[in-house]
Amino acid sequence: MSPQPPARRLRSDSASRPLQKGQQTKAAIVDAALGLATQIGLEGLSIGALAEVMQMSKSGVFAHFGSREELQISVVREYHARFEDEVFYPAMAFGRGLPRLRAMFDNWMKRTSVEIDSGCIYISGAVQFEDRPGPVRDALAGSVNTWLSAMRRAIEMAVAEGHLHPGTDAAQMAFEIHALILALHYEARFLGSPDSLQRALTAFDGIVGRFSTAATPVPETPPPARSRKTTRVATQG
Amino acid sequence: MSPQPPARRLRSDSASRPLQKGQQTKAAIVDAALGLATQIGLEGLSIGALAEVMQMSKSGVFAHFGSREELQISVVREYHARFEDEVFYPAMAFGRGLPRLRAMFDNWMKRTSVEIDSGCIYISGAVQFEDRPGPVRDALAGSVNTWLSAMRRAIEMAVAEGHLHPGTDAAQMAFEIHALILALHYEARFLGSPDSLQRALTAFDGIVGRFSTAATPVPETPPPARSRKTTRVATQG
Repeated sequence: MSPQPPARRLRSDSASRPLQKGQQTKAAIVDAALGLATQIGLEGLSIGALAEVMQMSKSGVFAHFGSREELQISVVREYHARFEDEVFYPAMAFGRGLPRLRAMFDNWMKRTSVEIDSGCIYISGAVQFEDRPGPVRDALAGSVNTWLSAMRRAIEMAVAEGHLHPGTDAAQMAFEIHALILALHYEARFLGSPDSLQRALTAFDGIVGRFSTAATPVPETPPPARSRKTTRVATQG
Repeated sequence: MSPQPPARRLRSDSASRPLQKGQQTKAAIVDAALGLATQIGLEGLSIGALAEVMQMSKSGVFAHFGSREELQISVVREYHARFEDEVFYPAMAFGRGLPRLRAMFDNWMKRTSVEIDSGCIYISGAVQFEDRPGPVRDALAGSVNTWLSAMRRAIEMAVAEGHLHPGTDAAQMAFEIHALILALHYEARFLGSPDSLQRALTAFDGIVGRFSTAATPVPETPPPARSRKTTRVATQG
């Protein structure tokens, strides 16, 4: 496994100047490819299928990517960039420590909730590529590992801030938080269980309670502009 | 979703008398189908592919199942029966309450560990069938729901035995335990993380600690013939 972080997406790289025609076309193709991948799976994505959706010739799509694998990797990078934009960067507005960690989890939950209808490439892709070593699998695993590392760093900061016990095992806590997201996705999307979101929130508070310093109650996040309706029952158990 | 429990498998139904020739053949086909499904996915399973593996004619396989869906459902039932034989029934030998609940989790972990190499139909099948309503999805979801109900009942018994708080939300606790299995599978199988097993055990003890009655320490399971080497660090956090 090579956990190299996927590159930032094209439009961020060139934020200040207009995209050139070729870049615009490529960005539009990647956008359509991502939409297709969430429907039929990253595995099912092909240059032919995409050309049909884009009403382009196969050779036209091929000119931008060169191979099916490169197309799939571009989709992973785009997915990663959107994930960062929705989950990671907004959480940076919160104070270091537990407020930021909680914001990261809340944003992750929000994104997962949306994906209960559409599916999640990190989850479906893991199943599709677990037995297929190669650059697509590496890009997917690298992307997930980058995010899990960010979670661990946020936990370490919460320890440094004195919000969590000095002996907190960041990898352990990140594993447990990741588990909640996987269970939320599985039970809500596949089993249709309506209470999964609340259960994941309750469980998160349970994990934080276990690792938090006894003297410090879990600080409530001061949200810039958000409501967390479900907090009221989140300390049960 | 219809959580009807899949029927017991053929060989248990007729444990005391030898299987008839047709039943033997069918059992052999289901066995091969299960092996094939863990490799290529339940979704990829077809009468044609199976006929090739069995070196039978398509019509020969078709005579036993009648449709691809029926074949897939037979595989789900067989998987369910084996899961019960390995995970559920052996745990019934343990005392009611926490010892039994812990045995169920330990057996589930053991099975998941084996499946880190081979894959798990409940996990891959969820991804493959989450957008495909129909009898195969129903059989899969029904099978998973049957098992999760058994976990909830075991938790309720642990409450009745006084091992867990009277206010324990069994569905909440079962959700959190399920989450650990999903994370173990994801992080060990897809990310290749070597510490996942230990992390799931530690997390289980954390969950039990949160729900257990303060006066009662987590009872150590008196195993009929087993060792739990990892228990020594399992109370961290």
